[in-house]
Order: sequence, then structure tokens, then C-alpha cells
Amino acid sequence: MTNTFCRQPLWECNDRLVRVAQGQEPADLVIRHASLVSVPTHEILPDTDIAVAAGRVAYLGVGEHTAEHCIGEGTVVVDAGGLFATPGFMDSHMHVESSMVGVSEYARAVVPHGTVGVYADPHECANVCGLAGVREMFKDARRVPLKAMLTTPSCVPAVRGVEDTGSSIDAAQVAETMGWDDVVGLGEMMNFPGILSCEPNAIDEVRETLKAGKSVTGHYAVSETDRGLNAYIASGVSSCHESTTVDDVVSKLRLGMYVQLRQGSAWHNLPNYLPGVLASGVDTRHLVLCSDDDHPATIVGDGHMDLILRLAVSLGCDPVTAVQMCTINCAECFGMGSDLGSIAPGKCADINLVEDLESFRVRKVFIDGELVAEDGRALFDVEPYAWPDFMTHTMNLGIDVTPETFRFETEKPDGSRARVRAIGIEAGQTLTKDAVVEVPVEGGQLLADPAHDVCKVCVFDRHHGVAGVHSEGFVTGFGIHGALAQTVSHDAHNLLVVGDNEEDMALAASTLAECGGGEVAVSDGRVLALVELPVCGLMSDERVEVVAEKVSRMEEAWREMGCSMPSPFMTMGVMSLACVPVLRLTNRGYVNCLTFEMEPLEVD
Amino acid sequence: MTNTFCRQPLWECNDRLVRVAQGQEPADLVIRHASLVSVPTHEILPDTDIAVAAGRVAYLGVGEHTAEHCIGEGTVVVDAGGLFATPGFMDSHMHVESSMVGVSEYARAVVPHGTVGVYADPHECANVCGLAGVREMFKDARRVPLKAMLTTPSCVPAVRGVEDTGSSIDAAQVAETMGWDDVVGLGEMMNFPGILSCEPNAIDEVRETLKAGKSVTGHYAVSETDRGLNAYIASGVSSCHESTTVDDVVSKLRLGMYVQLRQGSAWHNLPNYLPGVLASGVDTRHLVLCSDDDHPATIVGDGHMDLILRLAVSLGCDPVTAVQMCTINCAECFGMGSDLGSIAPGKCADINLVEDLESFRVRKVFIDGELVAEDGRALFDVEPYAWPDFMTHTMNLGIDVTPETFRFETEKPDGSRARVRAIGIEAGQTLTKDAVVEVPVEGGQLLADPAHDVCKVCVFDRHHGVAGVHSEGFVTGFGIHGALAQTVSHDAHNLLVVGDNEEDMALAASTLAECGGGEVAVSDGRVLALVELPVCGLMSDERVEVVAEKVSRMEEAWREMGCSMPSPFMTMGVMSLACVPVLRLTNRGYVNCLTFEMEPLEVD
Repeated sequence: MTNTFCRQPLWECNDRLVRVAQGQEPADLVIRHASLVSVPTHEILPDTDIAVAAGRVAYLGVGEHTAEHCIGEGTVVVDAGGLFATPGFMDSHMHVESSMVGVSEYARAVVPHGTVGVYADPHECANVCGLAGVREMFKDARRVPLKAMLTTPSCVPAVRGVEDTGSSIDAAQVAETMGWDDVVGLGEMMNFPGILSCEPNAIDEVRETLKAGKSVTGHYAVSETDRGLNAYIASGVSSCHESTTVDDVVSKLRLGMYVQLRQGSAWHNLPNYLPGVLASGVDTRHLVLCSDDDHPATIVGDGHMDLILRLAVSLGCDPVTAVQMCTINCAECFGMGSDLGSIAPGKCADINLVEDLESFRVRKVFIDGELVAEDGRALFDVEPYAWPDFMTHTMNLGIDVTPETFRFETEKPDGSRARVRAIGIEAGQTLTKDAVVEVPVEGGQLLADPAHDVCKVCVFDRHHGVAGVHSEGFVTGFGIHGALAQTVSHDAHNLLVVGDNEEDMALAASTLAECGGGEVAVSDGRVLALVELPVCGLMSDERVEVVAEKVSRMEEAWREMGCSMPSPFMTMGVMSLACVPVLRLTNRGYVNCLTFEMEPLEVD
Repeated sequence: MTNTFCRQPLWECNDRLVRVAQGQEPADLVIRHASLVSVPTHEILPDTDIAVAAGRVAYLGVGEHTAEHCIGEGTVVVDAGGLFATPGFMDSHMHVESSMVGVSEYARAVVPHGTVGVYADPHECANVCGLAGVREMFKDARRVPLKAMLTTPSCVPAVRGVEDTGSSIDAAQVAETMGWDDVVGLGEMMNFPGILSCEPNAIDEVRETLKAGKSVTGHYAVSETDRGLNAYIASGVSSCHESTTVDDVVSKLRLGMYVQLRQGSAWHNLPNYLPGVLASGVDTRHLVLCSDDDHPATIVGDGHMDLILRLAVSLGCDPVTAVQMCTINCAECFGMGSDLGSIAPGKCADINLVEDLESFRVRKVFIDGELVAEDGRALFDVEPYAWPDFMTHTMNLGIDVTPETFRFETEKPDGSRARVRAIGIEAGQTLTKDAVVEVPVEGGQLLADPAHDVCKVCVFDRHHGVAGVHSEGFVTGFGIHGALAQTVSHDAHNLLVVGDNEEDMALAASTLAECGGGEVAVSDGRVLALVELPVCGLMSDERVEVVAEKVSRMEEAWREMGCSMPSPFMTMGVMSLACVPVLRLTNRGYVNCLTFEMEPLEVD
């Protein structure tokens, strides 16, 4: 039972609910004639009334019973005839920063899609600005109705010893946050090798979370379902969103995990495994849905959990089962089923009225009994958040970047071709390949090879202002002409620059250095698109619609430059994510993310 | 995550589990080749290995994987070929006192049947000896492997103002117990009228439990599923075992409750509703099993949760669903799913090996990885508990009972027949009828009418030693000749005497006064059977097998006296239970348990 994510804890208002249920006192709100999606029983209950008081459900009028006796002076009555009432949707694992705005702006975008709660892991902000930055993000969150449930980032930096981040979090700090009101668990334990090797800080973070009686969320990024997975789960990790196959999902369920089925702007996993998992006939109680990372354009234009539900149903999932996966299952996953996830007496009145269980078009959203969105529009708004200086001045490269900065020196003779390691990118996949390609050598340097889709890539430490702490690598798969740069690059959020020529790469890098971070596309000496993200180099201070627009322009620029993958900036952004196999480039160089060894650029 | 009901909390031993899972350290125990009943996925996984360390599961070898790598020097290896491994069974609501022995003896009887945990509400002991008595009961419990999870009695006395009990518990005391290690929730809130009328003590008990983040268990004993039930649930009560119809069960599930399906020695509810509930097609995740009250003869001779499972399957329930109802569902009901209820890495190694999923014959029982029972025999034993004096001297009637004590004076003329209120008893049902019968009047007194199955019944305050605080009533349905007395009578555990003649009634009462309480059957001036229960007048200090034997002899005596109902002493024992409709007799007189008004003996 929580007291943070509700208008009032139940123990303060249960007497009022008791009286309202019996008609001795009027309800604040009565929703009438809804087809109720009953997630505890997996039924649809036609013509059901819902009475609400103190932000909680007081009474359900099912069958011949109505809530007429709960209506009095001041009761708001909503006719939901022809609509379905579902519990408010929840996203079981996500990073608000991926939307490129702060939580209050994010809420304006997703709440109209029926999202009432998110289990957020703010590890991007934490990598740049530490727990102090996280505190600010969640202060902003408290200004809007969305239930922003905080899982403390466990892996800041993502992997120790292979990159330079702006900040770090250790087990003692994790322990401290377990006393924070809005902390409900530990964020994704990406350091699974640390768990498997009983690395003290990793194990201690899990221990501190278990001691506090909270959930440890996982990230087991390899398709290994035997000894390693068993060990990982035995340590106390209770959920995981990093599955890629039916076997991954079913194996994790059998070992007692909650499995978060992921469908986000850049990760399209649901079609890969949902039909197979359903066909296997396993109990679905421990299946939950998550987005992990959603683009601003996605949440503004396409939707959020409603979009995932739509997809799930189109993939053959029973609609009530699908709703369970982002309501009751999700609440139970975090031990919060007594407050959240169902429409039932005593629970928070987080209720969506939707047109049908196929489109999941959301007409009205209630959070804690308040109407907060209607027909796609949020009914709340707040002033832009006053971000502190330490969060808006995070571009500290320590050098002026020029085309010379991108010379990759080699001892190979001019005119030869050098064998080099390259990151192999595939659209919509987090996993990369460890590829070996040949590139031309000229003027004592390794060159990009646009004809064979081989670009240069560099990562700069942008946190410490120490000149020259950057790395060199190659990448294949983007197929672009020009240069792209971003500071979102996961999880150290250093400055990542990709390009097929040094001039464009330099312009891209210096453009971001000037505007405080973000994303930029450059071609033939011209900035084609720019998304300024001055808050931590991760988030905009503009409206989410404006950001979405700029990101769309950015994607157009990608296409103009020759790349056709969906959400290419996200795919680019994980080229430096040192906790997901196989080959990654951090500001210190190549990392093999199976062995966590550094690897040289040139091969033999 | 608890730290009481396990050998070690997970946060102390997760590093060891991680190493064992990976074969870096030997397991304590490896169970091989079991057909694993996977309750999270609702599957049976053939030929599965289970490795255990520190009392918890470290590794599951599923499919082609084995636990051979976990076997080292000192590892106990158990071949479970041909057997099914299920999570240990749990009873979601029960009263140990009904078994007429203390927890350690109770454990000796039920653990061999596969019971590893019980959610016990010791309100019988509490009514006699208060929280001090409860503390003693659970000190005894800690000497045996059974997980005796304590729900603090909420209704001591059951209903205030209608009877005299030995002790009482209020909201402040409830709050105090929420800090006790073994308390997991609030015991059955039988005072539903108190909740519905927002009686401060009842509401406060719920509030203190919710504040502590623990579960409030229910007892909604009327077949009303609308306003009252909604109000009751809205107060924070999350489970209920007092359903009698399919509609009761389904309605409670729809309103978000966990429903405890009951099948105990005296309450045979399962056949009434289980087939109908299953036929309705509702999600079964919130269905759990419970015994409520089991006789010593039942647990020694027939079984416990294994018996209920057997019955459930014979009623058409899928066996894996049935197992879920006394394992994972039960653990989740109490928010303890992270430790209990599944065989999965990190969870307590509470494992049964059973012959099949029809007989549920239990071959081996492991609790926290220790083999604690085998082939029907407990492998643990303890000395008799040294009960303190205040618990073994509880018969304080304040009078010497004689046949004169049982004269029911009347002003009606001799030779007439008087219309009197009588409790109508039905075999195997908790509910009684408010009957009106005619009895003969002779010598200025109302007489029993054996020819029409009308006996006298008296309840004596046995706690306060105040002379003459007893009541008079009649009962129909037992069909006996002679007298029966008991001190178990719920929930004040006063001295209850039933008989068709005053001489036998007096002998029965004085026999119990002498031996410290218990049960006795008397006919024609001869004691036919006696079960001495000197601990609180509720529990024996003898072996459970001896008690079962004496109870069998007692049931034989009932039959000799003319009564054919099953477990008649339990049915008799609830004649005074003032929280269950309709008519009850306490030591103060008749109570109508719908209105909670006292009612006169003679009608018009």
C-alpha cells in the first residue's frame, strides 16, 4: 500500500468510501453505463456504474445494481454508455528522457493516450547529473497527475571502467533513495556480468533494494536461459524487458520472472514473440508491457500504451488479456496491486473510457478520480520547469573540434586497405554485430568508405572538459552521406559523431557544443536539421509537439542523407551502450560487451 | 520480501545462490528428474532438476539442462524420477486451535501432508488469554519448520457487547503487533457491521494494518454482494473465506478480492461453488484455498491441503490450477510472492514431491531446503511446550453446577406448551436458523422436548469467576439423548452445554470444570467420552494422534447418542458464534446476528 501515488492513502479515507458505497454520502464522481473491463476476473461487465470519492473507487454497480444511490449534490455524473472502462494503463519500464522532454511535458503527451503511470528509470539524466538531477526530474513530475514511479538507476555508469560519465551512483546512494517517497524499486540491472561475478557494488544494490521490500528490475540482454539467467534471477532480480525470442520469454516466466514485453519507437519486439508466447499456452499473469524508449514523435502522433495494446490485439492477443498486461499484472509486478491496476473498491480511481478494445481510442482519462484528459487533449498544463544551471550547462568537451580532430592515424602504407573493426547496425535491434571491414589508407590515415557504407564514428567525453578524451571507430549499416552527431548516445551521453567525411563531422560536433547538446544532421557543410536538448544534453525545454516536429525534420534529414531505418537516432544512440552485446564504442574505445574487454581498432 | 519465514533473507545469501547456479560452489541439495509443476506458467515441466542452497532455490535445470554442475561434495542428491515437484502447500486462512493442539503438534500432523505454511488467526486463544497467549502459541511455533504466519486477531471479542470473553484486543494493540516479526496481516474482520457503520475501533484496526503495508483478511458472512460488500472491500479488506454460492465468489472477485475457497472438517463449501466458479470462466489468479477449521482426526487421518486438492481435482478442477490456488495465488494474496509459492531461483525451497496430481499423495516435503517429512511421517519432533500457568487455568465458572442450574423458569402454566426461540442447526453449515418451536411446561419450567429433537442449551461465562452469568436457550437438529458440553464454543470459548435432561447436563459441565476444559459427552449419568483441553480450554497438551483418537471416541459417542452429522462438535461450537447469522446464544442470551440485537427466549 503506497501513500505517494494516490490523492489520499486508503487509511485516511476508507470511512468516507464506506459511507459513499452505502449511499450515506454523495460520491465526487459517478461514471454510468460503462462496459467494465474487469481485469481481476478477465471479463467484460456490461452496463456497470463506478462511484468515486477521495480519488478512489467506492462502489461498483454491476448487473442490476446501479450507483444512483451515490449521486448527490456536487456529484459529477459521466455517461459512459457505449464506452469501455479500463483501468488506467501503465508502462512497466521506460526512460522519460527518450521522449526528449521532462516528465511534465511527457505527461501532457501520454496521459491523453490513457497512460496513468510509468515505472521510470532516469538513468540517462543520472549519468549526466547524478541523483541531484534525478531529484529535479521528479520534482517536475509532481506538478502533473501522471504517476511517475521512480526506479533508482542501478548502472551509472552502465559498465564501470569502460567509459567516462558525468556522474555515478553506488550502492550506498541506492540505499539512500530507497527511503524516497517516489522510489518503488531498483532500475534495470544492466550489469548482469557484475551480478554473475558477484561484484560487490552490483550485489549490494540488489541487497539494499530487497531489504527495503522493493522490486529489482532487470535487463538480461543475452539469449541465454540456463546457468547465467538462473544466477541472475536468484540474486533477486524479478523482471526483465530484454527478451528477443519466445524461448527467452517462456524461460524467464518459468524461472519466476515478470517478463516485460517491449514495443517502443526503436525496439519492435512485440511481433517477434507475442504470438508465440500466447500460442505456448502459458499463464499470462506475469506478462507486462513496456515501451522502454519512445520518441517524441511517437507519443505525440501515434500513442503510447494504447498503441502497444492495439498492436497486441492485432497480433492475436485477447483484448482483456492485453489490458491485464498493462494494468493488474504491472501493478502486481511491483507489489502495488492493492492501490493500482484494477477498477475495484478502495483502489485509486485511475480509469480510461475507450471506444472499443481494438483501436483503444481513449475518450476520457481519470487519474485519482479527476478528469485529466479528453479526446486526445490533456486538461492540465504547467509552466516550463525552471531547470537549475548544473543541468543546463553540460557540454564540456575541453577542445574546439575541427576536421583535424577526426583524422584516424595509422601506420599502414598509403594506398593499402586496412582491416578494421566496425559496429554492424541493424534497424530496430539493440544488438549490434562485431564486424571486420576494409577501409582505404591515405595520407597516413584510415578513411571512411562511403561506397561500401562504412562511416567513421567518434565518441567525445563531454562531461569533464579534458581535451582529447575521445575514441575512433567505424560503423556500417546507416548508409548516409554527411555527418550526424548527438549527445543522447547511451548511457554515458557523451558526444557521438558519425560521418563519411571529416568536415561535416566537425560542423556537427561544434553545432551541438554551442547549443548545449542535442541531435544534428549535416551534409555538404550545411546543417539539415537540429534538435536542441539543453537540459542534460538529453531533454528540450520546449513543448513536446515542437520537439516532435524537430525530430521529424531530423528523420527527414536522415532519409535525405540516405538512411531508411525507423528511428535511426535511437539506433545510433545505442552504438555506445556498453551493456548490450556485441561491439560498442565508448569515449575510451571499442568494448566487447560479452567479455567487457577493450578491443583495438585495427585487426591483425 | 520477508526475513522471518526463510532460513536466510535473500539479501544475505544471494551471492551464494549466484555461485551455485553457475556451478562455482556445490549446492546443499539437488532434486533430480522431477516433473515440475510450474505455477507461474501453468505448465508441467518434465525431467527438471532443482538445486538448493541456503534454503533457497539456486537453479532450475529445465529441458536438456541438468543440475549436475551444482553437485559437489556434501550435496544431497534426491532422485525424484516418476514424482511431481510442487511448491509447498499453504493454507490461506485457518485457526490452529481447531486442531485442539498447539502449533508444534499441529505441524507434526500437517507437514507430512505437504503443508509448509499456514496463515493462522489465533483468535480463539486470544479470546481466552489475549495477546500474551498468542505470543506463547507462536513461540511454540518457532520450534518447528512449518511457516506459521500470524494474522493478528481483529475481533476479540467477536462482537462487542453481546458476550463475556477472557480477553480483548483493540486497535492500539493491533498496531503494536504490526511490528512483530511473524505478523503478516490482520485476522478475519468478522465485525463487518462495525466496518459498515464506521465503528472507530474496527476502522482503526484496518487502518493500522494498511499503514504497515500488510493484508486485511475478511469474513463477510452474508450473501449480499452489492452496497455492503462494496463498502466492506472499500475499507481495505482484501480477502474473504465466507462465501457460500458461486455468485458470492464471482462478485467478490469482480470487486478485487482474493476469495478463499473453504473446505474444512466442519465446512464443506468447495463442492457448492468450485464447479460453478470454474464453469463461469473467470480468471482464477485470485482464488485461494483454505481449511478455516480442521479437526485433529482430519489432519491425522485424512489430510490437509492435499485433501482439499484431491477434492478440487475430483470436482473437475485442472490440477495445476488447483496447485496454484494453494501456492502462488496464496503467496501473492499476502504480498509474499517474492519469497513463497513457486519453485524458482531465489525463492524459499519449500517443495513437495507427490506421486500424482490426482491423489496428491505426498512422498517428501522440503521446507527451506530441509527434508522435513517423508512418506506421511514428520522428521522433526519437539518436547511438549511448557505452557505458562495463565494459559492452563482458565476454567473460572464461579459456581458449582448442579441439575438445578439448568432449570429454565417460566410464567407459563404447567401442562401448556410454550413457544420459544431455538437455534436451527444444519450439518456442515456455519449459518443457523432462527426457529420457533413449542416446548412443554412443567413444574414452572420450560422443558426440553426430545421427541421433537429440541434440546436445552446453556452458555456459562467461564472467564471471570462470577456466579450465575449464564444464559438459556433451545436448539434443534442434533437429535441426541444425553448431554454434551464444550469450552471450544466460538468465539468467547465459554462453557456451552446442550442436553435433553438436566442431570446429564450438570455432569457434563462439572466434568469439564474439573479437567480444565475440553469436550465431553454424557448419557444416563455416564461419561461416554472426554477430550481434555487444558490449554486455554482449547488445546490439548497431548500428542495430536492421541487427541484425534479421543475425538473419534467422542464422535462415536455422538452417534451412540443419536446424532449423525459430521464433526458435530464443530457445528455445536459455532452455536455461540455471534458474528455469523442468524441466531446464536452467548453467555448473555440470544443474539440476532443480522441486527446484533439481543432476543428473548420466549416468543410473544
